[in-house]
Amino acid sequence: MIIVLKPNATKEEIDHVLEKIEKLGLKPWMSEGAERSIIGVIGEEDIVRDVPFEGMSAVEKVMPILKPYKLASKDFNPNPTSVKISDSVTIGGKEVIVMAGPCSIENRDMLLDIASSVKKSGAKMLRGGAFKPRTSPYSFQGLGEEGLKYMAEAREKTGLSVVTELMDIRSLDLLVRYTDVIQIGARNMQNYNLLKEVGKTQVPVLLKRGMSSTIKEFLMSAEYILSSGNPNVILCERGIRTFEDYTRFTMDINAVPAIKQLSHLPIVVDPSHGTGRWGMVSSIAKAAVAAGCDGLMIEVHPTPEDAFSDGDQSLLPEKFKDLMTDVSKVAKAVGRSI
Amino acid sequence: MIIVLKPNATKEEIDHVLEKIEKLGLKPWMSEGAERSIIGVIGEEDIVRDVPFEGMSAVEKVMPILKPYKLASKDFNPNPTSVKISDSVTIGGKEVIVMAGPCSIENRDMLLDIASSVKKSGAKMLRGGAFKPRTSPYSFQGLGEEGLKYMAEAREKTGLSVVTELMDIRSLDLLVRYTDVIQIGARNMQNYNLLKEVGKTQVPVLLKRGMSSTIKEFLMSAEYILSSGNPNVILCERGIRTFEDYTRFTMDINAVPAIKQLSHLPIVVDPSHGTGRWGMVSSIAKAAVAAGCDGLMIEVHPTPEDAFSDGDQSLLPEKFKDLMTDVSKVAKAVGRSI
Amino acid sequence: MIIVLKPNATKEEIDHVLEKIEKLGLKPWMSEGAERSIIGVIGEEDIVRDVPFEGMSAVEKVMPILKPYKLASKDFNPNPTSVKISDSVTIGGKEVIVMAGPCSIENRDMLLDIASSVKKSGAKMLRGGAFKPRTSPYSFQGLGEEGLKYMAEAREKTGLSVVTELMDIRSLDLLVRYTDVIQIGARNMQNYNLLKEVGKTQVPVLLKRGMSSTIKEFLMSAEYILSSGNPNVILCERGIRTFEDYTRFTMDINAVPAIKQLSHLPIVVDPSHGTGRWGMVSSIAKAAVAAGCDGLMIEVHPTPEDAFSDGDQSLLPEKFKDLMTDVSKVAKAVGRSI
Amino acid sequence: MIIVLKPNATKEEIDHVLEKIEKLGLKPWMSEGAERSIIGVIGEEDIVRDVPFEGMSAVEKVMPILKPYKLASKDFNPNPTSVKISDSVTIGGKEVIVMAGPCSIENRDMLLDIASSVKKSGAKMLRGGAFKPRTSPYSFQGLGEEGLKYMAEAREKTGLSVVTELMDIRSLDLLVRYTDVIQIGARNMQNYNLLKEVGKTQVPVLLKRGMSSTIKEFLMSAEYILSSGNPNVILCERGIRTFEDYTRFTMDINAVPAIKQLSHLPIVVDPSHGTGRWGMVSSIAKAAVAAGCDGLMIEVHPTPEDAFSDGDQSLLPEKFKDLMTDVSKVAKAVGRSI
Repeated sequence: MIIVLKPNATKEEIDHVLEKIEKLGLKPWMSEGAERSIIGVIGEEDIVRDVPFEGMSAVEKVMPILKPYKLASKDFNPNPTSVKISDSVTIGGKEVIVMAGPCSIENRDMLLDIASSVKKSGAKMLRGGAFKPRTSPYSFQGLGEEGLKYMAEAREKTGLSVVTELMDIRSLDLLVRYTDVIQIGARNMQNYNLLKEVGKTQVPVLLKRGMSSTIKEFLMSAEYILSSGNPNVILCERGIRTFEDYTRFTMDINAVPAIKQLSHLPIVVDPSHGTGRWGMVSSIAKAAVAAGCDGLMIEVHPTPEDAFSDGDQSLLPEKFKDLMTDVSKVAKAVGRSI
Repeated sequence: MIIVLKPNATKEEIDHVLEKIEKLGLKPWMSEGAERSIIGVIGEEDIVRDVPFEGMSAVEKVMPILKPYKLASKDFNPNPTSVKISDSVTIGGKEVIVMAGPCSIENRDMLLDIASSVKKSGAKMLRGGAFKPRTSPYSFQGLGEEGLKYMAEAREKTGLSVVTELMDIRSLDLLVRYTDVIQIGARNMQNYNLLKEVGKTQVPVLLKRGMSSTIKEFLMSAEYILSSGNPNVILCERGIRTFEDYTRFTMDINAVPAIKQLSHLPIVVDPSHGTGRWGMVSSIAKAAVAAGCDGLMIEVHPTPEDAFSDGDQSLLPEKFKDLMTDVSKVAKAVGRSI
Repeated sequence: MIIVLKPNATKEEIDHVLEKIEKLGLKPWMSEGAERSIIGVIGEEDIVRDVPFEGMSAVEKVMPILKPYKLASKDFNPNPTSVKISDSVTIGGKEVIVMAGPCSIENRDMLLDIASSVKKSGAKMLRGGAFKPRTSPYSFQGLGEEGLKYMAEAREKTGLSVVTELMDIRSLDLLVRYTDVIQIGARNMQNYNLLKEVGKTQVPVLLKRGMSSTIKEFLMSAEYILSSGNPNVILCERGIRTFEDYTRFTMDINAVPAIKQLSHLPIVVDPSHGTGRWGMVSSIAKAAVAAGCDGLMIEVHPTPEDAFSDGDQSLLPEKFKDLMTDVSKVAKAVGRSI
Repeated sequence: MIIVLKPNATKEEIDHVLEKIEKLGLKPWMSEGAERSIIGVIGEEDIVRDVPFEGMSAVEKVMPILKPYKLASKDFNPNPTSVKISDSVTIGGKEVIVMAGPCSIENRDMLLDIASSVKKSGAKMLRGGAFKPRTSPYSFQGLGEEGLKYMAEAREKTGLSVVTELMDIRSLDLLVRYTDVIQIGARNMQNYNLLKEVGKTQVPVLLKRGMSSTIKEFLMSAEYILSSGNPNVILCERGIRTFEDYTRFTMDINAVPAIKQLSHLPIVVDPSHGTGRWGMVSSIAKAAVAAGCDGLMIEVHPTPEDAFSDGDQSLLPEKFKDLMTDVSKVAKAVGRSI
């Protein structure tokens, strides 16, 4: 950590900073410059990270040198991690894994239909929400356990692996029983108790980026899961909130190569939420694969205009089939397969 | 709801939209314009709110007419709501209520000391965290129930009402037992299950605005609590996330008059989080009161540089005393008291 | 335009709105609803666009129906526009046009070298700044006319078309003389006088999106040029400003399909500015082509670490060559060529 | 400047960085740490600011120590600067200066009327636009020189100082002739040639913050004017662009104390643009004064609903009078006067 001192800091004020560092068991060194003097802090940066040096009278600003995450970092593991979901599905390898299905599980028949349809088009996993985080208390909140049962049935019938969202610690046991991958939604990315609990299982976790979280915070949330003992973390970029309002969110495509530079964890992209408009999903799915993502998560609905949620961004099964054809070509062009 | 049609929509496509509206039991009317035709939908807007008209081929855009929140709206209750905390503390009246105390409860002595100090300076409530949502899993996570006991003891000794944060549904009973006001933190503003649970109690809830939530979403989260049966909701503006990085967050001062225009609920401002720098807290506290807020939430620590969390933005007790003197003058200038 | 009335608006207040509409020569119609009444305004929306109905006591909100841009809109021209730069270069067709070169023109030799190198790798246009908008007054501000002469010489030697930035109306004549395409930079996207002046020429204009401009505002700035008489407008997405700070800007990849839905103008993407990191440029260039862009603008420098500006985001010529190979494959996968 | 090295950087790569620093005539020192080694650069930071160290293979990140602005900094001048506008008007002293008037100058009579009205209410300066930067080319663009003449006449009749916006270098002479203060609008904050030209005069400049500019960039734009020779710079906070859409912009109230910490220049606040809603202007004007601003800029119009521009955010003269009464009380409460 580097501490930049104010030009007019007194010797007494500076000594106070030095003493504070020594009291923490660390070694400060000082470098006096013409315009600014600085103090370097040698040793475990974690010890000083929460110390409020910026509040001290001698201090102009504090600059951390190390990244606050460790287990999620490429320093910890320079090789890409791949997360095994089933014998035939691994996320983080050469194959780009596509997860498709409805936003909400609405009933048994529609789920089984979609499952068989997206499988035919090449999807390897089925997505679908049994517990739905809705902005309005008056909107459909999901079928709960009933929905999970349909997911399990769809898995049995199609062989697709299934992913569904966990909103509440009290439902964790249910999800562990019924699902292959537990999704933590964007609104819960910083629900730390939830992260700790899924961290105590070994079930693969699909962690969605919070809509206003930096990449650093995203990796810190992954760190909560990893440091609780679960190494099976899959990251998911799903768009961030900006001033642009033509689209529902702004897909942060930069996050794909950025995560690849900073972390060993696989990264999946969700173009349905990242655009909010079905007419843009295929275009952004292709972009995500070209940028290097390890998977796609796409909302498909047999009759989007009857969907209980996210109908505007859901694809018809035949549009999804076209998307798979197009995306496969792009995957091949960048040395991947679907 | 107004549905704007594409200029080249066919009669068949338009009929499809009209039928969909009628199937929902609503009455459409159509108005043909030179450049665009529109369809108005008469009747309960809630029925159509989740219908994905924007995904239909005839539709260019959809414009809702009504606000999605009801109980939180000024339409529902044109008069300001005041929330009674104790016999002597009511939020939402002429008096601006100041809540002060440490970010985290660190030990018994410091909490009792601060409590008695902020009381002397004029605070009416004590704040302090026993459960802490920390970005890093390696940071101090709070004392838990032990902290709550110190809060209860501080209340008994000083007569201050107390407010502390709820992070986990499993801690709700504890909080109900020990605290006067339950705080829902910014990171949990859209943790809907948590909102529903506090909505089932009658304990006053201080709901902090999510760092990237619009005012509309903020009021929708209040609606979750209100519609679950708890009318005692206090809103808290604590800064939003923007591109500006000199300050920790950007205090959205506009939210104060905006909330007053849209809702009957009281609004408190937290300048400690809204700035992240203790040297700016007093300035922004004065601004918030001048803008019309009903309360302030301020972090105070006896030795900020030893604080376990948020030391950079915590005030020394004597600085807090000065703040109270300054803020009182501003309160008086706008016809309020402290 | 739809005007939503407040639930408690008086007849007098409503009549006032109706009269105002009629005074403007338009026809209002009113529709009374259970919760809200609305007034529709029939006729030229342009007449009412700047009328401040939202300030009136009866009015809750105003919702425009038409888009504020016309000539830039797909309504005006449903077919894609292609802009001819030279006999061999057209932007907006099947071919994805790559413009490459240094951020700043630093001297004659480096420019000629880069020009010949990027041409060999497949670029069709040379970019390079003679007038540089720099955040700091103490940074290199460009070679001015001298730089333009080198650009003209490079064009002659290589046959590449050239594009360079206009910052000041007083330099317009110079640019018209020396360059094939005039670039309007992000910081000048709303320098309306500059837009009007380039609109009076017939020289193709590459209009970069302002870093905090919505897509609507972007198209409104194109409208300034088009309505001044110059139909040769090429749009350029170059990243927007968000809270994310790992990258210099957030590349708004959604803007590519969004512009294709809203406008007939071609859209080019600049991954160098959109990421600010050379290690991410190739990944995002591929994504942009996969998403459907009509061109790429890429910074290349023989020794990036000696560059006068933007060295962090400039590619070495050999890295650029690799990028061209990779991007070509993606172009082919989406039915385009480079 | 501190350069943080990658953990796996080779000796050769590190030597390359050290050589580069020495070639620039500066002295590097290296400090090896357990997890990261760093290189400090001693000497003029300006020399290295534009060197793209982050692009080098050994380098993880670069952290500047000094602020990039000098003349605008409190280091350069620790005492507040006050800018003299006339014998009776100085901005940056104990008095909070209020500038009021219409958004656009629409005709002679309205301007003279407003001028005399706002003067009676206590304004010291008249604002009004003769050249208007409008998002749409089809909107009213201002009266040009005719408007300036009316401003000069209003000044003569009322004794108010006048401020008006400069959009185009070609109009500079006109503005110098007719106005007391030249306003640089938000959209031109990074129109560097314009900044340099006003920097060559001695006319006081009111520099508005760009809607997506950081405070650092804001001060860098001030630096352009100061370093060109004009010390009479007044900063103006007018709201920034965020995701919140209930208000036109988000007023960054934090900028007031932030500017006071970083710079010696006076800071004025514009609550009309910062909110976009006349019903919120008074509340935010009070907040701005409580936060410590040196002036207010407020739009007033005799009949806002007929205004050619910004009618939604313009106050009626009688509302402005009330605002002045209210704001005066707040000014007094914080030891200022109006």
